[in-house]
Amino acid sequence: MKTDSGLVRNAAGRLVPTVSNGKEQVPYKGVAKYKPEGTKVAPPIASCKDYPADGNKVVKDLKTALKAAGLKDGMTISTHHHLRNGDLVANMIFDIAAEMGVKDLMWFPSASFPCQAKNIDHMDSGVIHHIEGSMNGPLGRYCSEGKMRGMGMLRSHGGRYQAVQDGEVHIDIAVIAAPTSDSFGNSNGLTGPSACGLLGFALADSQYADKVIVVTDNLIPFPCIPWQIQGNYVDHVVVVDKLGDPEKIISGTTQITKSPDRLLIAEMTAQFVREAGLMKEGFSFQAGAGGTSLAFAIFLKEMMKDEGIKARFIRAGSTKYQVEMLEEGLTDYILDGQTFDLEGIRSMRENPGHVWTSPFTSYNYHGKGNFASLLDIVILGATEVDVNFNANVVTHSDGLLLHGIGGWQNCLFGNCVILPIPSFRDRIPVLVDEVTTLCGPGELIDVIITERGIAINPLRKDLLDAVKGSSLPIKTIEELKTGVEKLCGGAPQKPKFKDKVVAGIKWVDGTLIDSVRQV
Amino acid sequence: MKTDSGLVRNAAGRLVPTVSNGKEQVPYKGVAKYKPEGTKVAPPIASCKDYPADGNKVVKDLKTALKAAGLKDGMTISTHHHLRNGDLVANMIFDIAAEMGVKDLMWFPSASFPCQAKNIDHMDSGVIHHIEGSMNGPLGRYCSEGKMRGMGMLRSHGGRYQAVQDGEVHIDIAVIAAPTSDSFGNSNGLTGPSACGLLGFALADSQYADKVIVVTDNLIPFPCIPWQIQGNYVDHVVVVDKLGDPEKIISGTTQITKSPDRLLIAEMTAQFVREAGLMKEGFSFQAGAGGTSLAFAIFLKEMMKDEGIKARFIRAGSTKYQVEMLEEGLTDYILDGQTFDLEGIRSMRENPGHVWTSPFTSYNYHGKGNFASLLDIVILGATEVDVNFNANVVTHSDGLLLHGIGGWQNCLFGNCVILPIPSFRDRIPVLVDEVTTLCGPGELIDVIITERGIAINPLRKDLLDAVKGSSLPIKTIEELKTGVEKLCGGAPQKPKFKDKVVAGIKWVDGTLIDSVRQV
Repeated sequence: MKTDSGLVRNAAGRLVPTVSNGKEQVPYKGVAKYKPEGTKVAPPIASCKDYPADGNKVVKDLKTALKAAGLKDGMTISTHHHLRNGDLVANMIFDIAAEMGVKDLMWFPSASFPCQAKNIDHMDSGVIHHIEGSMNGPLGRYCSEGKMRGMGMLRSHGGRYQAVQDGEVHIDIAVIAAPTSDSFGNSNGLTGPSACGLLGFALADSQYADKVIVVTDNLIPFPCIPWQIQGNYVDHVVVVDKLGDPEKIISGTTQITKSPDRLLIAEMTAQFVREAGLMKEGFSFQAGAGGTSLAFAIFLKEMMKDEGIKARFIRAGSTKYQVEMLEEGLTDYILDGQTFDLEGIRSMRENPGHVWTSPFTSYNYHGKGNFASLLDIVILGATEVDVNFNANVVTHSDGLLLHGIGGWQNCLFGNCVILPIPSFRDRIPVLVDEVTTLCGPGELIDVIITERGIAINPLRKDLLDAVKGSSLPIKTIEELKTGVEKLCGGAPQKPKFKDKVVAGIKWVDGTLIDSVRQV
Repeated sequence: MKTDSGLVRNAAGRLVPTVSNGKEQVPYKGVAKYKPEGTKVAPPIASCKDYPADGNKVVKDLKTALKAAGLKDGMTISTHHHLRNGDLVANMIFDIAAEMGVKDLMWFPSASFPCQAKNIDHMDSGVIHHIEGSMNGPLGRYCSEGKMRGMGMLRSHGGRYQAVQDGEVHIDIAVIAAPTSDSFGNSNGLTGPSACGLLGFALADSQYADKVIVVTDNLIPFPCIPWQIQGNYVDHVVVVDKLGDPEKIISGTTQITKSPDRLLIAEMTAQFVREAGLMKEGFSFQAGAGGTSLAFAIFLKEMMKDEGIKARFIRAGSTKYQVEMLEEGLTDYILDGQTFDLEGIRSMRENPGHVWTSPFTSYNYHGKGNFASLLDIVILGATEVDVNFNANVVTHSDGLLLHGIGGWQNCLFGNCVILPIPSFRDRIPVLVDEVTTLCGPGELIDVIITERGIAINPLRKDLLDAVKGSSLPIKTIEELKTGVEKLCGGAPQKPKFKDKVVAGIKWVDGTLIDSVRQV
C-alpha cells in the first residue's frame, strides 16, 4: 500500500514514511500488535588490558576524548537532557566537531532545548546532519520549517531505550554530562555545582554505545557512590570548569498553576479519582511537574490525609510536593525518573524511599514488563485530543513541532489514564475532530477532564459505572467538543502543511505511528 | 602443537584441551596477551505485550515456571551460591527435571556446595550431563574421580561474568534464589528468613539468560527496594516455603583463627603492609573472610588507629570486622561482593557506605576496567605456591579438585598481592617446585608470607627496596621452600593422575590456563 511519495498508511490510518534517513521503517500495527524478532544488539567486547590499571580514565579535555573515541564523519553522537535548558555540554561537542572539520553527524539527544539552538549553525554548516530526539523550541521550529537535511525522529523515553537496545539506533559515541564522577567514570547527578538528580536517560547509551565519555565539573576520589552510571561502561573522563547553569538545570521552587480554570480542572481530577474508587490503600499514581498535575497532587494529598489512605508508590518527575508526601508518610516510595527542583534532589540524596529509576525499569516496552503498566492512575497532558480520544503532544494546532514526547506514550499503559486539560488555549479548541499528529491511540486514554466537564472513554464501562450517580459533570466527548467550539467560534483551522515529511513519530515498540510535515 | 590426546601446550607450559564439551577452547596466551574479538552476546528482544500488565509474574510452582521457560534436554541451567551450603533451590530444580524426564542438562552454578551432593544422583542417572562452575567438596571429588560425563570448567567470579557476556556460555534458564522479591521479579538478599546480603553472582544470568526465574520465600508488594536483581529481566516468579537453611546461609559469628602460627602470619602481613609504606591515607585493601585474612584485618585496624590513617575503601566479602571499621570511621566505603555474617547483612541494609557490587563492577576482565585492579593491597590464600610464585587454589597436593576459584584470579590484578599462607599443612609442604594446578601466574603474585619468613617476588624491586633495613624476615622463596622441606622430610609426593582430563581451569579472559586430570 505504498504511496508515490514513499509513504504507507499505518494501522491508525496515518501516512508514514517507509524509509527514514536510509533506514527501513515498520508502520504502526496497533497497540500490542507488533512482535519484535531477533536479539538485542551488543557492543564490542572490551578488555581491561586496554584501560589503565589504576582506573584513572581522565584525559586532558573533551577534544582529546572525542579524538580518542575516534570521532569521524557520519557518526552518531548521543547526549542527555538531565541539565535541561542549562546544559553547556552539547554545544561544546559540536563546536569541537566543527573545529575538527567533522561532517554529517547524527545528534541523538534524549531531548534538546533552546540553550542548544546554537547547533542550528552546525546543521546549516553541515557538521550535524540531523537530530533524532525531542526538539523543544527553536530546534523543533527549524525541523518543522523543513530546514534539516535528515528526517527528525521523535521517540518516547522508553522508545529511545528500546531503539538503542534493539539496534535501531547505533550510538558511536555517548557523551554523558555528569554532575559528579570519579576518575573511573562512576557518576551520579546527586551532588556538585550542576546537580540534577539522576542520570537515567543516559543508561542505554552507557550500556550500548561503542565509546562512552563522561564529562564532569565535580571529580571526586573513587568510588563515586552511588554509581547511577557505572564506570565499567566508560572509556574516558573529562573534567570541565562548568557543566551547566544551575538555575536553568533545576528550579529553586516549583510553580503550581494560579489559573482558576486549571485549579478547577485539577480539583475535578482529584474528585474523579476519589469518586471512581481509585484512591485506595496501597494505590499508586504518576503526575508530572506541570502546573495542573502539581495542583492535582496537592488536592489528592489532602483527600488522602482526610481518609487516612497511603500510597505504595508515586512515580515522578519529582518536586517538593512528592517529597512532602514521602516525608509525611503518605507514600512508601517515590520511583523517580527525573527531579525538577532542589527539594527533589535533596530527598533523592537523603531518603532511601526516594528511588532513582531509568527508562529501562519504567518505560522500555521491549523488556519483560515495565513499571508504567503497574500504575493505578496516570495524569498526563496533551496539546490536542480528538473525539476518538486520540491525543497529540508534539505539535500545536498550527502544525509546528515544538515539544518532545517524554514519557507520555509509555505512561499510557497505566491502568487509568487521565488527561486534565483546558478545553481551549488562546481561543483555539483543544478538543478536535482529528488530532494534527497522533502520538497516543485513543484506546489507551481513559478520561478527559476539562473545565467544562469530564468525558470517559466508552471502552471503560467500569469507570462509567463507578461514577454513575456522582455529582461529577460527566459528558460525552462530542458534547464537550461542541460546547467549546461554540465558545471559540468553531473548530480550529487545519494547519497548512507542505508535502515534505520532516519528522517521524515512533510508537513505544519502534513502529511509526505518525509523521510530521513541513509547515 | 596439538598432542595426540587433543591437548595443546599453552603459554604457561601447561597442557590444556583444544576442545571441551564440544566447544573450541583458546589456550592461555599470557597475562594481558589475549585480545577478544567481536561483540558481546545479547538475549532475544522481549515485549511487554507478552507479560502481565499488572506486573504479577507469580506462577503456581517451580515446575510450572520451568515448563513455561521451555525446559528441555540439553539446556543450560544456571544457579547461584548466595545461599552457600544452605541452598535448597538447586536440588529442587534437578528433582523436577528428573520428574519431567529431562536429560543431559548442563548445570552452571556460580559455585556448588556439599548441600547439593544429591545432584550426583542426577549426574549418574543422566539428568545432569556435567557441571561448569566451582565444585566444593563431594561434587569436586566426583569430577576428580572421572565420573562426570562432560568436562568440568572452573571460572573465577569475573570469568563467569565474562563467559556469559562474551557468549562462551549460553544460559537457557537462570533460576535465581532471592530472599526477598516482589511479583514483578525485583529482588534482593537483604531481608527475609533466607537473607544472604546480595545477589551479585546472578547479575550476568539475569541480563543474558533467555529465561529468568526468581524463586523466593519472602514475597513483598511491588516495589522491592533496592532491586539488586531487576524485575525487567525476569520472566517468572515462584514462591516456595523455604529457600534455604538460615544457619548454613550465613554465619551468626565470624571465626578468627586461633592457631598461633596463623596469627603470627597475619601479624607479619600487617607489619609488612606498614613497613612497605602501603598503609597510607586514602588507601584501599581487600581481605577475605578466611581466619588468617580476618586476623590480618584486625591487626591492620589497630595499626591504622595508632597512626590515624583512614582507608578510602575496603573490598570484601564482609564480616563484622569490616563493618566495625566502617562504623568506626576507618574507611569511607565497603565495596562488598558477598556478606558472610549477620552483621554484614545488617550493615548493608543500614549503611549507605556499605555498597553492594557485582562481578561486573569488580571482576569482569572484559569490561572497560574493573575495581580489582584499583586495590592497593590484596590478601589471598592458596593451596600451593611454587618457586616461580605461581599459585594453586583448586586442587590439593593429592590432586583432588575440592575448591573453586572464587574471585581469587580477579584479585591478582591488585597493586600488591600478598599470600599469607602456612608453609606446610598436615606435614605436607605448601611451597613446591611446581604447582599441581596453575590458577594464577607468578608474575601477578608479589609477596608470600609464611610463619618461616617472607618472600618477595624479584619482579617487585620496589617492594624489596621498601622493606630493606626493616626487621621483617625477608628470604628468597627457594630458602623458604628448602626450610619447610627439611622440616617435613622432603618435597611432597606428586599426585598420581590418569590421562583423562576431568576439568579445565579458565583464566580471567576465557582462555585455558590449566587442566585437571582424573586421580
